[in-house]
Amino acid sequence: MEFNYIESGITAPKGFKASGIHCGLRKNTERLDIALITAEKDCTVAGVFTQNKVFAAPVGVTREHIKNGHARAIICNSGNANTCNNDGYDKANSTCSALAKELGISENDIIVASTGVIGVPLPLEPIINGIPALVNRLASDEAAADSAARAIMTTDTKKKEFALELELDGKPVRIGGICKGSGMIEPNMATMLGFITTDADISSEMLHKALSEIVCYTFNSVSVDHDTSTNDMVTVLASGLAGNTQINSENEFYELFKDALRSICTKMAKAIASDGEGATKLLECRVRNFRNKNEAKILAKSVINSPLVKTAMFGADANWGRVLCALGYAGVDFDVTLPDVKFVSDAGEVLVCENGRGYPFDEDIAKNILVQKSIIIDINMKCGEETAVVWGCDLTYDYVRINGDYRS
Amino acid sequence: MEFNYIESGITAPKGFKASGIHCGLRKNTERLDIALITAEKDCTVAGVFTQNKVFAAPVGVTREHIKNGHARAIICNSGNANTCNNDGYDKANSTCSALAKELGISENDIIVASTGVIGVPLPLEPIINGIPALVNRLASDEAAADSAARAIMTTDTKKKEFALELELDGKPVRIGGICKGSGMIEPNMATMLGFITTDADISSEMLHKALSEIVCYTFNSVSVDHDTSTNDMVTVLASGLAGNTQINSENEFYELFKDALRSICTKMAKAIASDGEGATKLLECRVRNFRNKNEAKILAKSVINSPLVKTAMFGADANWGRVLCALGYAGVDFDVTLPDVKFVSDAGEVLVCENGRGYPFDEDIAKNILVQKSIIIDINMKCGEETAVVWGCDLTYDYVRINGDYRS
Repeated sequence: MEFNYIESGITAPKGFKASGIHCGLRKNTERLDIALITAEKDCTVAGVFTQNKVFAAPVGVTREHIKNGHARAIICNSGNANTCNNDGYDKANSTCSALAKELGISENDIIVASTGVIGVPLPLEPIINGIPALVNRLASDEAAADSAARAIMTTDTKKKEFALELELDGKPVRIGGICKGSGMIEPNMATMLGFITTDADISSEMLHKALSEIVCYTFNSVSVDHDTSTNDMVTVLASGLAGNTQINSENEFYELFKDALRSICTKMAKAIASDGEGATKLLECRVRNFRNKNEAKILAKSVINSPLVKTAMFGADANWGRVLCALGYAGVDFDVTLPDVKFVSDAGEVLVCENGRGYPFDEDIAKNILVQKSIIIDINMKCGEETAVVWGCDLTYDYVRINGDYRS
Repeated sequence: MEFNYIESGITAPKGFKASGIHCGLRKNTERLDIALITAEKDCTVAGVFTQNKVFAAPVGVTREHIKNGHARAIICNSGNANTCNNDGYDKANSTCSALAKELGISENDIIVASTGVIGVPLPLEPIINGIPALVNRLASDEAAADSAARAIMTTDTKKKEFALELELDGKPVRIGGICKGSGMIEPNMATMLGFITTDADISSEMLHKALSEIVCYTFNSVSVDHDTSTNDMVTVLASGLAGNTQINSENEFYELFKDALRSICTKMAKAIASDGEGATKLLECRVRNFRNKNEAKILAKSVINSPLVKTAMFGADANWGRVLCALGYAGVDFDVTLPDVKFVSDAGEVLVCENGRGYPFDEDIAKNILVQKSIIIDINMKCGEETAVVWGCDLTYDYVRINGDYRS
């Protein structure tokens, strides 16, 4: 289903304000490094977190804070991950205390997140000193939302904010979201953060259910989760101010809301993929007509994660043998004499492999398709009806440059 | 145990000849593209092969040919993988027939291997036409061995040949080996081939047992097997001409022979890792003092495969947080408050992480250690007595360059 996107971001839904400032975590004083998002009333909340055994202190703190299904504010710094530090929990808790005092809310209602380098103690003073200014600048206009979106960026080259409108139970409802995440090639350290707000009225149980179902086909379908960062986090706050009858069960409104949430999460996931560190292209791998959806996803992930496929796409080289090879080592059983492979872009499509064998194609046509900015690797397994779609990006010189000396 | 290495290669053991020529598979007439290794008498043989579901025709043919435990010759071309082609088996079989006729042996005694691009039909004519010259040039001198070692190279920048001597059962025994393999970052397409010869007398059963046990700690401990190529193959031919009493059981001579085989396989594996595509450094990851050897290897592999660890090593950046992160997503349970991490090289060693937390270190000292050509990432898990060692290389601009347009 298509939804109506509007030029706005995290403050598009009723009841939310945001701000972003430079507090001093980054050396470059022109770069914003801390963001705040607040709700004017208590919200229901849902969150999903990294599966990494080594996880950041703010991840641990936030997991606890949202257990009761309610929250009021999100504070997120960039420039330091607050991971693998002895005093990480103390500092994440101190951040929450200071913010709670300033906002006059419970510290248990605060979501705290960090992104940046691991293992370097988090400087707490800039954060504590910055909180009054952060609160002072809270606003619901687009400039404020923009500041929050920028303040969570690390090696991201583009800010990522989206907002959509739908009608739910006769009421206009909005969903807004910001996200960051930029490393793509097994971006274990390129933390993916997503913060979503909505004015829909939905119970925390149903919100959690919707987010959990969606994340598999959106954020976890970016080539991210198989090498989960220590700091990954996606949360949704729902203010309920749209005035719809609260969604408490899997009724038609739940399904519609979930569709809309999935739509915006897909936009966010694709934005993260196409802004992968050093990326010049968005790659989409579709594994179609397979017997099992989960195994189709494993196959698609294997292709999108292959450095050799990624470098070939960077070079606009129709080296489809690498696609077959990546299918073959995915650990999923399939008949190797069945797959067809096509490369698809705005410039057209070209069949390069039929029944697991090379199909004669025109190199010039293939090149023209592969020099485009968005490439689909379409794989027809011809043994079922399930499909999986995942996103990634090419592997380039700039990825190496960016990650060769990240800490400097 | 230390063994005595000699300046020689695949023809060092008694009873073997080799040759390598340019037959016309490659455009560059100065590059050798087909190798032959022959034994003057029937040999016992053992082989291990790719686990990729999409495997090359020569892999399928060779698997059949060595089932009876005997072989006489190896023919291997570079420049074309003979994989995913309709006529792949026909051409691999035709190659064996033509060679069998020329050598006067059974085609069932021939090991056939290929490495190069997937999905492009193998030109058979240059091979068939080249066989007489290949046979004609067979010799046991170092120049002939050198030609064979060079003819199997693809993007390898260095030929890889080794030979060692030991005394077994009172007799001098030699083992010689050549290998190729150059892609390192999940080198799914950078086929790893290893051909080993020995004049030891050993039954095919014991030879197979020794090779199977060793491969896990050598070739499969390079960052290769988790993304197995379609063409990977390691074989050992044993001529028996050293005159030792045939090894038919796990006696002391079996153990000594296995140690020597492991030694040369380790040399070969490390040579492949350090010549990884675009590599500037050999990386070794040691996971020590863990409760389980297999899980220690999974942890070590996770670190050595992390593109972010690899790029940090390229940049000589002591970003140890990426090491912890890679341990955390490996899927192995461990206490995150235990690991110590050290970086070690010829320039010294530096502790960067203690008990899962940052340990203060001098950046200049760390830099000086990490600019060396061979780096050990030493991880002490402090919860057991098992150790795993794996090898890999850094991720560099040149990896992207080499793989961005491999087919051209």
